Amino acid sequence: MCGVFGIFNSSQAALDTFYGLYALQHRGQEAAGIVVSDYDDQKQKPIFRYHKDFGLISEIFRDEKVFTKLNGRAAIGHNRYSTAGSSKLPQNIQPFSVTYKSGHIALGHNGTFTNAKTLRNKLREDGVIFQATSDSELVLHLAARSKAPTVVEQIYEALSQIKGAYSIVILTDTQLIAARDPFGFRPLSLGIKRKDSEDPAYVIASETCAFDIISAKYLREIQPGEILAIDRTAVQTEDPHSLFLPKSKKKARCIFEYVYFSRPDSTIFDESVDKVRRKLGKNLSLESKITTNEDENYLTVISVPDSSNTAALGFVTESNKHEKPARLELGLIRNHYVGRTFIQPGKEDREIKVRSKYNLVRGVLKNRRIIIVDDSIVRGTTSKMLVKLILEAIPKEIHLHISSPPIDHPCYYGMDFPNHKQLIAYQLGHNVEKIGKYLGVDSITYLSIEGLLNSVPKYEDEEGSYCTACFSGKYPVKIDDEELNKEEFDE
Amino acid sequence: MCGVFGIFNSSQAALDTFYGLYALQHRGQEAAGIVVSDYDDQKQKPIFRYHKDFGLISEIFRDEKVFTKLNGRAAIGHNRYSTAGSSKLPQNIQPFSVTYKSGHIALGHNGTFTNAKTLRNKLREDGVIFQATSDSELVLHLAARSKAPTVVEQIYEALSQIKGAYSIVILTDTQLIAARDPFGFRPLSLGIKRKDSEDPAYVIASETCAFDIISAKYLREIQPGEILAIDRTAVQTEDPHSLFLPKSKKKARCIFEYVYFSRPDSTIFDESVDKVRRKLGKNLSLESKITTNEDENYLTVISVPDSSNTAALGFVTESNKHEKPARLELGLIRNHYVGRTFIQPGKEDREIKVRSKYNLVRGVLKNRRIIIVDDSIVRGTTSKMLVKLILEAIPKEIHLHISSPPIDHPCYYGMDFPNHKQLIAYQLGHNVEKIGKYLGVDSITYLSIEGLLNSVPKYEDEEGSYCTACFSGKYPVKIDDEELNKEEFDE
Amino acid sequence: MCGVFGIFNSSQAALDTFYGLYALQHRGQEAAGIVVSDYDDQKQKPIFRYHKDFGLISEIFRDEKVFTKLNGRAAIGHNRYSTAGSSKLPQNIQPFSVTYKSGHIALGHNGTFTNAKTLRNKLREDGVIFQATSDSELVLHLAARSKAPTVVEQIYEALSQIKGAYSIVILTDTQLIAARDPFGFRPLSLGIKRKDSEDPAYVIASETCAFDIISAKYLREIQPGEILAIDRTAVQTEDPHSLFLPKSKKKARCIFEYVYFSRPDSTIFDESVDKVRRKLGKNLSLESKITTNEDENYLTVISVPDSSNTAALGFVTESNKHEKPARLELGLIRNHYVGRTFIQPGKEDREIKVRSKYNLVRGVLKNRRIIIVDDSIVRGTTSKMLVKLILEAIPKEIHLHISSPPIDHPCYYGMDFPNHKQLIAYQLGHNVEKIGKYLGVDSITYLSIEGLLNSVPKYEDEEGSYCTACFSGKYPVKIDDEELNKEEFDE
Amino acid sequence: MCGVFGIFNSSQAALDTFYGLYALQHRGQEAAGIVVSDYDDQKQKPIFRYHKDFGLISEIFRDEKVFTKLNGRAAIGHNRYSTAGSSKLPQNIQPFSVTYKSGHIALGHNGTFTNAKTLRNKLREDGVIFQATSDSELVLHLAARSKAPTVVEQIYEALSQIKGAYSIVILTDTQLIAARDPFGFRPLSLGIKRKDSEDPAYVIASETCAFDIISAKYLREIQPGEILAIDRTAVQTEDPHSLFLPKSKKKARCIFEYVYFSRPDSTIFDESVDKVRRKLGKNLSLESKITTNEDENYLTVISVPDSSNTAALGFVTESNKHEKPARLELGLIRNHYVGRTFIQPGKEDREIKVRSKYNLVRGVLKNRRIIIVDDSIVRGTTSKMLVKLILEAIPKEIHLHISSPPIDHPCYYGMDFPNHKQLIAYQLGHNVEKIGKYLGVDSITYLSIEGLLNSVPKYEDEEGSYCTACFSGKYPVKIDDEELNKEEFDE
Repeated sequence: MCGVFGIFNSSQAALDTFYGLYALQHRGQEAAGIVVSDYDDQKQKPIFRYHKDFGLISEIFRDEKVFTKLNGRAAIGHNRYSTAGSSKLPQNIQPFSVTYKSGHIALGHNGTFTNAKTLRNKLREDGVIFQATSDSELVLHLAARSKAPTVVEQIYEALSQIKGAYSIVILTDTQLIAARDPFGFRPLSLGIKRKDSEDPAYVIASETCAFDIISAKYLREIQPGEILAIDRTAVQTEDPHSLFLPKSKKKARCIFEYVYFSRPDSTIFDESVDKVRRKLGKNLSLESKITTNEDENYLTVISVPDSSNTAALGFVTESNKHEKPARLELGLIRNHYVGRTFIQPGKEDREIKVRSKYNLVRGVLKNRRIIIVDDSIVRGTTSKMLVKLILEAIPKEIHLHISSPPIDHPCYYGMDFPNHKQLIAYQLGHNVEKIGKYLGVDSITYLSIEGLLNSVPKYEDEEGSYCTACFSGKYPVKIDDEELNKEEFDE
Repeated sequence: MCGVFGIFNSSQAALDTFYGLYALQHRGQEAAGIVVSDYDDQKQKPIFRYHKDFGLISEIFRDEKVFTKLNGRAAIGHNRYSTAGSSKLPQNIQPFSVTYKSGHIALGHNGTFTNAKTLRNKLREDGVIFQATSDSELVLHLAARSKAPTVVEQIYEALSQIKGAYSIVILTDTQLIAARDPFGFRPLSLGIKRKDSEDPAYVIASETCAFDIISAKYLREIQPGEILAIDRTAVQTEDPHSLFLPKSKKKARCIFEYVYFSRPDSTIFDESVDKVRRKLGKNLSLESKITTNEDENYLTVISVPDSSNTAALGFVTESNKHEKPARLELGLIRNHYVGRTFIQPGKEDREIKVRSKYNLVRGVLKNRRIIIVDDSIVRGTTSKMLVKLILEAIPKEIHLHISSPPIDHPCYYGMDFPNHKQLIAYQLGHNVEKIGKYLGVDSITYLSIEGLLNSVPKYEDEEGSYCTACFSGKYPVKIDDEELNKEEFDE
Repeated sequence: MCGVFGIFNSSQAALDTFYGLYALQHRGQEAAGIVVSDYDDQKQKPIFRYHKDFGLISEIFRDEKVFTKLNGRAAIGHNRYSTAGSSKLPQNIQPFSVTYKSGHIALGHNGTFTNAKTLRNKLREDGVIFQATSDSELVLHLAARSKAPTVVEQIYEALSQIKGAYSIVILTDTQLIAARDPFGFRPLSLGIKRKDSEDPAYVIASETCAFDIISAKYLREIQPGEILAIDRTAVQTEDPHSLFLPKSKKKARCIFEYVYFSRPDSTIFDESVDKVRRKLGKNLSLESKITTNEDENYLTVISVPDSSNTAALGFVTESNKHEKPARLELGLIRNHYVGRTFIQPGKEDREIKVRSKYNLVRGVLKNRRIIIVDDSIVRGTTSKMLVKLILEAIPKEIHLHISSPPIDHPCYYGMDFPNHKQLIAYQLGHNVEKIGKYLGVDSITYLSIEGLLNSVPKYEDEEGSYCTACFSGKYPVKIDDEELNKEEFDE
Repeated sequence: MCGVFGIFNSSQAALDTFYGLYALQHRGQEAAGIVVSDYDDQKQKPIFRYHKDFGLISEIFRDEKVFTKLNGRAAIGHNRYSTAGSSKLPQNIQPFSVTYKSGHIALGHNGTFTNAKTLRNKLREDGVIFQATSDSELVLHLAARSKAPTVVEQIYEALSQIKGAYSIVILTDTQLIAARDPFGFRPLSLGIKRKDSEDPAYVIASETCAFDIISAKYLREIQPGEILAIDRTAVQTEDPHSLFLPKSKKKARCIFEYVYFSRPDSTIFDESVDKVRRKLGKNLSLESKITTNEDENYLTVISVPDSSNTAALGFVTESNKHEKPARLELGLIRNHYVGRTFIQPGKEDREIKVRSKYNLVRGVLKNRRIIIVDDSIVRGTTSKMLVKLILEAIPKEIHLHISSPPIDHPCYYGMDFPNHKQLIAYQLGHNVEKIGKYLGVDSITYLSIEGLLNSVPKYEDEEGSYCTACFSGKYPVKIDDEELNKEEFDE
């Protein structure tokens, strides 16, 4: 997972991109970068400038002076997710920026190509050298080798050869280009800043929370298969042009973006995440079998802050319709100043991580029957530690409710899930009872796949609208066999 | 405000202190330090080691190697609050560590002495040189000049001369000492780790959330006026000894700790903060005049995450007893990756700060009558920006509810409130309507001082238990006149 | 100018390379890097690792931990010279490291290609993307596009297309390759470490001082036009194989390497620099017209430490044959702790630079007739400040003697000389008297071009052995016209 | 050893101090600091500002912005020597800066107090707390406890109680004060900048090379026992006033300053170091028994650059009077870019240190009989490695000549010599032959103590002018017994 951002025609393009990446920080914490396009009046030619590094965006741009060097009215930025086991190569930090026959070009990319290895091998045979091990470099090589006359058409030709999931921002000497794969795996939206002025700025972002922070307005999502190009003329006419890759009747929006990944204050796939997530909570409540006992006033519902707050609220709102509604409590307090932790001798690292992140409010949990609403379980290790922590408050019972189905299958489209063997649901044979026992709870309830699909928006004229592969094992785009063993590359 | 921590008899005293300060980070973000006491077997004498710097505790201890140097079984630590306008002098970072006739001594301190200037002038005339401008140095000079035979008695004599608010941890070559002023302004608690082992560790902290993170148990609070000394014998007998400063019938616990400053998952003044804060919300609800209109299903209640979450929950829980209860919504989402912000040309810094910290969930606010529950208003500038932000969601009405009375008076006991002129309540003549108008809301409701006092625990045999000076102007400890103009010192 | 280093079959290849670059630091201070080739036993494939940054080698490798990551038995390294006006792009720091069809490949390069722009344009048209603006990337693209079966043959094909000056080290998954252009512009030598063991290491370096520091022995220079490849077999048989580019009867060794650039303790072009530089001093003495006056005991000779120490010694050794020999004195003391300087208001930066670097020993200069022996004059600004400084000691006369002819022409083969207009000799119309007047000395003597050629080794069977273009204007390799306006590239 | 600097009445006092410390860097490389005195017009009171850290002065002040904060027309600075085994405490970095009854005061100090422990114990008993373990803090405590009405008189009273070696600079709110102990152990000079203007600046420095770099003129040395105070009036009248501590007929100038420690381009004790050091070389030549053999043209003399360059030059100048004079050669080249070194497995750290610092010019040494002129031998380890290095050039014979007598005794006055046991001369029973054998040379010649005293200036009316304790064991100031075991203090 990653976050991308782009802006065209802003007097402070680098600073806007900084704030955009800041709002998208949850999509990637390992590394980040900003590339700015400018015109050097002295040398009479375009110039690209950039700043990239490992770390959070606020750490990378700690020194305000950096911005004084990043002049230019157009910029793109990228947040990279920390993928387990990847070697930390500085040249892999995006955006990737090069020169070629048509000038400068830079690219930031969220997703995974399922035919990357095949393409890379083919290009290598043709005499191409590779700097980085990321997929992004592939797009640029393919575009540079295209004989098409314009940059947009070169990009079109490049993307035509690529399979898989991608939401891309591209910066050239004169344009900002946004592109999304025909299946629409990853979200990507178009916004506008200073809409009512004569000189508006166009903005592209993975999620709309990046528009809000810079006071830009949401216009629409980039369509699956759309390649949108914004230049000076597009700004003046307020009419950016688009090319479209061959359409697919079937779409494959990542449903896990709604479940967990996106921020609740964002709009993705043209719908409010908050609204979907509350519906997940509501449907989870309807499917739940746990009810208030006769001898107790209320069941206590707690969320795992902040990721399942919205689902938990949806859960109790539905519950309020009952005679004896469950009551929402703040049983876990999240520490705001999370930094790195140090392993204490004799303790597992994950325990201190959980303790550093959450603390108990014992009073509201003690002697209570508790429903924990959480969004998903991947490996199960964090959930296990969390349950262990909550047990210290001596509750009467713990019933874990998950606002999505069991994760049974790895993701080949960009989500950093481990392989089968590390997924707890797969490991314990999809046996919900066993999972509950492993985690140490009295019961565990997963939302059904019907409940999940019932919570998300419907799109007409589509033969399928979502990718649910991690839950269902139905992969919408075929994976090249050899890709299944993820290629791991080192310099 | 500041946070203090101390531990005695831990094989990883420095690491425990790191985690303790990590949990207390909300009490001070400007600077932090850890001092460890060890015995140098080679040189056959005690040795103190420390690491201090500006920044968050996780930044200061980014490098794990630091801990390998901080050997020793006893340690104290300190988080310093960022006070506006203070010059950033490295020598002011606590704990303050020196040598004197009785060996090494280090001190970390939360509070303010009201006779600091008088004491400093007197000591200067006696030939004392001052390194730092903090009050902490005073305690050490006074102790060093005492003729008392033991360190604890020296500390007793020193504190006998000091007036004001203080919660102090002191480390010597053989002891960990904790002390609290006779009025009990600031919280300070005693805990124990590995309670059931033969070799437990004693822990001191401003708030009990620092015990939880290292799996220590809360024992009791340090009494107002108590000077508690922990040494090897105390560990073996599980019986630390205490001296008591002359008792005062009147106490002056800082009520603002309950309102805002402490974490809800902490116990302070022997009571759960969560419990008090929920009662503040409940009483605020009882005092509120805003009710659901006939033509609407429900009033929307939102908190300002995370500081007023608990009060908001108390508010709606009470509201649930009504026929048409108000409904809690997550209208504001807090960004987890807060770092520094950069001023955008033409914008006020505070606006981008608010936008970087919070984002709207428009759907739940649009066209709604909204009650915002917040804990307190000091200058009013952040509240004003927040209201402006919420107005972008186009609510029907905004009613601001504050779970404490108007702050009308500066604090001389350690809370970093500005002087009268900058307090919005003072500035607008305590006129609630004017405050509401200034902030841009339809109405504003403050909790009454009775509602406030009604929410906090009662203590028997006390002629007064809380300091409410910032609300009431009743200062429990006389301030030396000349101190009112805060002494500002530069090196 | 730059320094290159390579080692094959050392258990501490990265550390050896660090020390090699340390000894070659005088050849480049702007940036440096080390690339190590290793075999990942776990993944069963080769792996390259690197560390590169701006700054001195000792700054870049300040942290010893870096070496623990740079495992591997073969490595190359590069020091980059600070060229005025070059934009500081991190991707330009060498060695340049990529992957291509034959595996990993990294390259470090000293020199300049005279047909770089032509080659780059051609490659761009073929669809190549460029990361950096340095010439080094060109070699790798050309090699990757070669259809030759082996890496060495690919390199051969690549270098066949390149014109200009280069001394190159290349690292592959199994080999260390060294190459030098057919004219032999830049020095490059082969050495051996642990010669008498069964498992020796081969070493490549720009100068032999890099062998001495790691206790390696000098074997021979890499021949002009030679491409030498060292692999496991070459180590076992002690017989590395070479390919040769088409030979040229004319050679073009950079004579300025002997005059100034190389260290006196190095051997380059198969001759001791010390020996040549002393001969330069001797010949300068023979050409000098300044003699001891009748009324004085001796003329005082001072060098500009440390660059002209050797020439000054050669000068006085020759002078010692006279009846009244000149006497060598230490009139200038060089500061060993040179760091950056700060401009003082109202003073030219260069003055404080000179004062920070040198100080006078007044006693040996006062009232004396002085001969300053210096190696060369480029812009004249530093010499002017130095003369001004020496005048503060109130000498009777100053006679400046330069152990090389006037620099009249820019260098297109890698030496960072400015264009014509900034060369003082060109600017003042080669008028020696005017130059002396401008510098403020009583007289100035340059070594004649015959004296220069008389000081350097002769090579048989060559139609020309040195490049003297900067002195004579005779450029041995034609420059593509458009290259004369140095391409300046920004990202 | 340390370097001190002070300036009064300069518009760029901090920058001048930076350059002064830069020139004095050879006197201490471990840490440095600058304190500036300014008047805060807004607050209407004096203010001190400082910047201190570990490292070279050019590293500490890498960022030019630091100077913009160090406003003020008066400043002092200090370079600290790296003393083996001292714990690296930041609070020990000088200048030491505090406030006391008379305002701000800061102090930088070169030397050692021989009654420091006694004084510290006494002050501790009186209730004084100590921050640092350096002697400097003592002066400030003593001054602060003095009842004298003026700062200068307080300093006088403080220094009256102190025994030992010191050259001190002190900064107050209105004055720059310089003081030197009555025996005059350490050098300290007075200079003036812009002498002929109406508004000159006064400068104080350990050595005059610090005057040259900022274009200041040398006026005179601070007299032994003098306390010189410079204020606005002193500048206007060009007449600084002095107090004098009780005079001593016997002086104790450190003769090792001439032998090794000071820079040759400095004047100390009112004499040029270059002149003395050349005389040491001359006298060494006169005492030498090594002469040119009949079958050889000349003996080769090399120095160990740069510390013995001057003595070597004096040596050959005297030798030139012989029929067959010895010839000076540059046999060792010193690396200019010295940084930290890393231990290679299986090698002693010191060997790579020597190889990193020096390299051989083999041609001038091979088959030659060589005289190495070096200034002194302390432990002998570096000399041993150097001889080993030179042997690689295969000389015929090596005769080591030392321009000072054997160092047999530790220094208690500030020079960082180890205790007896580590001194090679002491260890080998002053047996010169054994020392030569240990070092691996054919012979070793030390300058006699008469030759040494014959080389330094004579002072009339003194019963003794130099401290030669390290050579002779005659300690001019009695050491408190308990001080002999150097007190080692940790925080």
